[in-house]
Amino acid sequence: METYRAIQWIDDRLRLMDQRRLPHEVTYIDYEDYAAVAEGISTMVVRGAPAIGITAAYGMALAARQSTAIDGAGVLVDLAQAGGVLRQSRPTAVNLAWAIDRILQRVGDRALANPQAVRDAVLAEAAAIEALEKASNYQIGTNSLPLVPHGAKIIHHCNTGPLATGDYGTALRVITAAHEAGKEVHAYVDETRPRLQGARLTSWELLRWGVPHTVIVDGAAAHIIRTVGIDLCVVGCDRVAANGDTANKIGTYGLALAAHAHGVPFYVAGPTSTIDMSVACGDDIPIEERSAAEVTHVQGRQITPDGAGVANPAFDVTPAAYITAIITERGVVVPPFKENLAKLMGSP
Amino acid sequence: METYRAIQWIDDRLRLMDQRRLPHEVTYIDYEDYAAVAEGISTMVVRGAPAIGITAAYGMALAARQSTAIDGAGVLVDLAQAGGVLRQSRPTAVNLAWAIDRILQRVGDRALANPQAVRDAVLAEAAAIEALEKASNYQIGTNSLPLVPHGAKIIHHCNTGPLATGDYGTALRVITAAHEAGKEVHAYVDETRPRLQGARLTSWELLRWGVPHTVIVDGAAAHIIRTVGIDLCVVGCDRVAANGDTANKIGTYGLALAAHAHGVPFYVAGPTSTIDMSVACGDDIPIEERSAAEVTHVQGRQITPDGAGVANPAFDVTPAAYITAIITERGVVVPPFKENLAKLMGSP
Repeated sequence: METYRAIQWIDDRLRLMDQRRLPHEVTYIDYEDYAAVAEGISTMVVRGAPAIGITAAYGMALAARQSTAIDGAGVLVDLAQAGGVLRQSRPTAVNLAWAIDRILQRVGDRALANPQAVRDAVLAEAAAIEALEKASNYQIGTNSLPLVPHGAKIIHHCNTGPLATGDYGTALRVITAAHEAGKEVHAYVDETRPRLQGARLTSWELLRWGVPHTVIVDGAAAHIIRTVGIDLCVVGCDRVAANGDTANKIGTYGLALAAHAHGVPFYVAGPTSTIDMSVACGDDIPIEERSAAEVTHVQGRQITPDGAGVANPAFDVTPAAYITAIITERGVVVPPFKENLAKLMGSP
Repeated sequence: METYRAIQWIDDRLRLMDQRRLPHEVTYIDYEDYAAVAEGISTMVVRGAPAIGITAAYGMALAARQSTAIDGAGVLVDLAQAGGVLRQSRPTAVNLAWAIDRILQRVGDRALANPQAVRDAVLAEAAAIEALEKASNYQIGTNSLPLVPHGAKIIHHCNTGPLATGDYGTALRVITAAHEAGKEVHAYVDETRPRLQGARLTSWELLRWGVPHTVIVDGAAAHIIRTVGIDLCVVGCDRVAANGDTANKIGTYGLALAAHAHGVPFYVAGPTSTIDMSVACGDDIPIEERSAAEVTHVQGRQITPDGAGVANPAFDVTPAAYITAIITERGVVVPPFKENLAKLMGSP
C-alpha cells in the first residue's frame, strides 16, 4: 500500500495532513502553537476519534514547549490550561479527554522539577499514545478476522482508516485486515453527509489499499442491504458508554436499524481509549451540533435556498441493543455489554 | 403563497421550469419536440411521478402537432411511436406509462379521421390529466387532515410539492394542507442525496408556503426521530404495487425502518395514477440506476477520488408491512393493502 501519515511529529512541530482538501490534494499544515492545534481539530483539519486524541497529545507537547515557566510545576500549570483549550475543541469523542488526562496524570505523577524534563516527558507520552493506538488498531484487525466470512459484502460508515486513527484504522481495519488475509471482501462505502468522509476519505484510502468498493449515498444503505445481500456492517465509534450505547458519526443509528431489520450483524470497532466507563448510557454523551454551513454548502457551493432552517447534529447514539459486538484491541465484546465492558475495562 | 408553475402549455409549446437550476435561479425551457421532452424528463429538468406523467401527456400533444400524417389513423401511429420514446425516458414511475396509455386509448377509441381533430383531442386529454392530478392533489391534502395532529413534527423525504406534481403536491400537500388548517406543523426535510431534491426544492417550496422547516442530512433522520419526537413521516411514491409495496426515492426505505423502530406512523401519499395493479409486489418494479456522476459530483464539483466505484439506485422499495396507510384522492387506504387497494381501484 502507498503509505501516508495524517499526523507526524517532525522537527519539534506537529504536521497534520489537511483532510478537508482530500481527495483533491494532499497538503499539510505545520503547527507550533497548541491553540492552533485546537482550532485544527475544531475545523476538522484532522478528525476521527483516535486521531484527534493523538493530535491533542502532540498539542500538549507543543504547549509544554510554549510554556515559559521556570520550573516543572509551572509547566504543569500551563499544560493544564492548554488541556482545557484542547479538550473543548470537540465535545463528543472521548479520546480527546482521554489523551489529555493521561498526559497530565502520568507527567504530573513524576513531579519533574526541570521544565525541559517535563517537555521531554510530555512528548514521550504523546509518542507512547500514538504507538499504543497503532498497536491497538492492528490488534482490532486481527481480533475481527473470525467475524468476517470469505467474500463478505460489508457496509462501512464515515471514515475510520489511518486518516482517522493515526495508523491502520478501526472499522476500516476490519475490512483491510480481511482483504490482506485474502478474504476477497467488497466494501460498500456510505458517503456520509454532511462532511462526506466516506466519499472523500474512505474511498481514497480503499483505493490505496486495493480493496474493491462501491460508494453509495447514505440513503441507499437500506436498499443495498435488502437487495445485494450484505454480510455485516462495521462502524467506528466516538464514545462508547458503559452500557454499550455508542456515539458515532451521524447516520450510524439509521444504518444499525436497517441492519437489525434484516438480521445483518452490526459491529462497532474501536480501541478501549474510546470506551468511557464514566458515562452510564448514550443519553449522557454530549452530541456536537456543528455549523449549518456544512449542510447548506457542499465544497463551497450552496445547495439550499437562503432562509432555510437547518439542523446539523454531527453524531448520533446507537443503543446497545442494535450492536452485535464491539471489537477492541483487548478482544471482541458481546452482550450483555454492561457486564462484559466492565470486565474488559477492569483488566487492562 | 407566491405562485409558480413547473409545467405550462403556452402558445402551442410546453414550458418546463428547469428544476436542476433551483433554488439558485428560476428559469424555463420551451419545448416543441416530443423527443426533447423525453430528454428533459430523463435529465430531470422535471421530476416527480405525477409531474412527469403530465409532462409526458403534453409531450404527446407535441408529437401530435409534429405528425405529418395525412389522416387521423396516421397521427395515431406517430403518437404510438412517440409514446414509446417518452415511456422509456424513466422506468420506475408508473405515471409516465399511465398518462401515455390513457391518451392513446381515449383518443384511439374515438377513431377521428381528421389529423387536426386528433391533435385537439390529445391536447384536451393532456389538459384533462393535468386537471385531474391537480384535483387529486388537493383532495389528498383534505383526506390527510385527520391524520395530522396539531403541532405535528413531520419528516418528509425528497420533493413532492407543486414542482413534482403540477400543483399542490402529494406528501408535501399533507404538510401544507395541515399548515393552512392552522395546525402549526413543523417539517423536517431530508436533503435527499444524490439530487438534493429536499434541500434544493422542498425547502424552496416550504419557504414560499411559510411552513417552518428544518433541513437535515438523510443520515440524521433516525437520530431526529429518536431525540426530537416525530409524530409522523410522509413520503410520495413513484409506483405502488397491488400489495402496497411502494417504490419511491432512494432513502425512503431506511426512513420507513427508522419510523417503524420508533412506532412512528409512516404514510405514503399519491394519486391513484401512481398505483399499478398490474404489478403484484415491489420486487417486480424496475429500479432505475442513474449515472455515477450524480454521486461523485455535487453541483459540478467532484467529491470522490478518481477510480472510486459507485452505485446509484434512484429508488428503493418499502415493503407494505412498514407502511401505516396510503393517502389517495379516493381515500386513505389501510392494511390489508392487497384487499383494500383492489377495492379502491375497482371502484373509480
